[in-house]
Amino acid sequence: MSKPEPGDAAQGAPGEVKLSKASVNRFSLYLRRLERFLSDGVQKVSSSQLGEALGFTDAQVRKDLAYLGSLGQPGIGYNVSELIAALRRGLGTDREWLAVVVGVGNLARALLRYKGFGRQGFRFVALFDADREKIGRTIEGLKIHSMEDMAKVVAETGAELAVLAVPIEAAQSAAEHIAAAGLRGMLNFAPTVLKGLPENFRIVNVDLAVQLEQLAFYVHLTDTKERT
Amino acid sequence: MSKPEPGDAAQGAPGEVKLSKASVNRFSLYLRRLERFLSDGVQKVSSSQLGEALGFTDAQVRKDLAYLGSLGQPGIGYNVSELIAALRRGLGTDREWLAVVVGVGNLARALLRYKGFGRQGFRFVALFDADREKIGRTIEGLKIHSMEDMAKVVAETGAELAVLAVPIEAAQSAAEHIAAAGLRGMLNFAPTVLKGLPENFRIVNVDLAVQLEQLAFYVHLTDTKERT
Repeated sequence: MSKPEPGDAAQGAPGEVKLSKASVNRFSLYLRRLERFLSDGVQKVSSSQLGEALGFTDAQVRKDLAYLGSLGQPGIGYNVSELIAALRRGLGTDREWLAVVVGVGNLARALLRYKGFGRQGFRFVALFDADREKIGRTIEGLKIHSMEDMAKVVAETGAELAVLAVPIEAAQSAAEHIAAAGLRGMLNFAPTVLKGLPENFRIVNVDLAVQLEQLAFYVHLTDTKERT
Repeated sequence: MSKPEPGDAAQGAPGEVKLSKASVNRFSLYLRRLERFLSDGVQKVSSSQLGEALGFTDAQVRKDLAYLGSLGQPGIGYNVSELIAALRRGLGTDREWLAVVVGVGNLARALLRYKGFGRQGFRFVALFDADREKIGRTIEGLKIHSMEDMAKVVAETGAELAVLAVPIEAAQSAAEHIAAAGLRGMLNFAPTVLKGLPENFRIVNVDLAVQLEQLAFYVHLTDTKERT
């Protein structure tokens, strides 16, 4: 039923990963919702309760969670804390991930100051820019390196992930540099589709317009309500 | 089945809007996927094809799309262009939305230069900041106004949406200002939950860490694969 089409897996190695982008989105939603259940003092949850809270079918929830191994007990449900731990293990966020930022403009500065990343186990360890003027400077305690030094710095720091925050016209070439430097995946903030990168290099595209679209939708719904 | 819990509707007026956050997410995903079908030359699509492409059940897709009115023909499916138009009408993104940015720091500058918003019908018309030093300056062609002038400027420009891009400690007070100024909804980039805002004021929280988490997950999956 949820056999994904190649194009819906994360950009990179379509055939390899058998989870669609939608499945990964659902895992994130499960995790967020379970964290809220826990903070509300809820200790046990059934697949139908979790599904109902998120708008998924019971069957979908059970199928997704089965991917994490056998966790729930029939008629009793899931232990919330255990399920959170299993999701974190499954998602790979039970450990620290080191990341670099490529392109040190306004977005990079904003991201470096963003409190949410550290909380979820992500730590920035180095910055890169093509602009000779910026190289050697320090921002938020991190040194800006040249693009040419990326492979060396990545090897030294053990960074695995990159955040691409360059202007749209510099995105393709910077992305190729990142993939060649030994980084394993990249969060792409440039609103463009990147091409020809290695199969095992992962890309997640961030489309900030989608969020604004959702806000417009909620406001629009109010209009529709008022008219009826 | 997908009757949402109050807390899962957009923050603001829980009981009023009968669509869960997950439903709205699905509408956005349908729209993106259909746009890709169209650019690939696909003109007809069935609910099961659309569901399969996104990892949703056929029943879920039909139920969601029924919300837009009767569009599909049994045994034939949906006309892709018509479905896109209906989704845009349904989502309220078939028209231009005017927005303001509150808090003119690095994130605001990055957002103002972000190409994706204009493409989806969003236009920024004014900026606001509490810092006396910044007020009166112009950034990307837009003037920075004082927080006190917000209601006046909102009335003059006809802006409906706000993007909150202030530091976490200034978020609650700025949000109250925004709601009081006649704006109808807000995209909140501050990683904090805002409280006590009017029932009909809509909030969409943007959690940038979720995207990095998804990237980590894809990279983690590669590890798991390699180990087996």
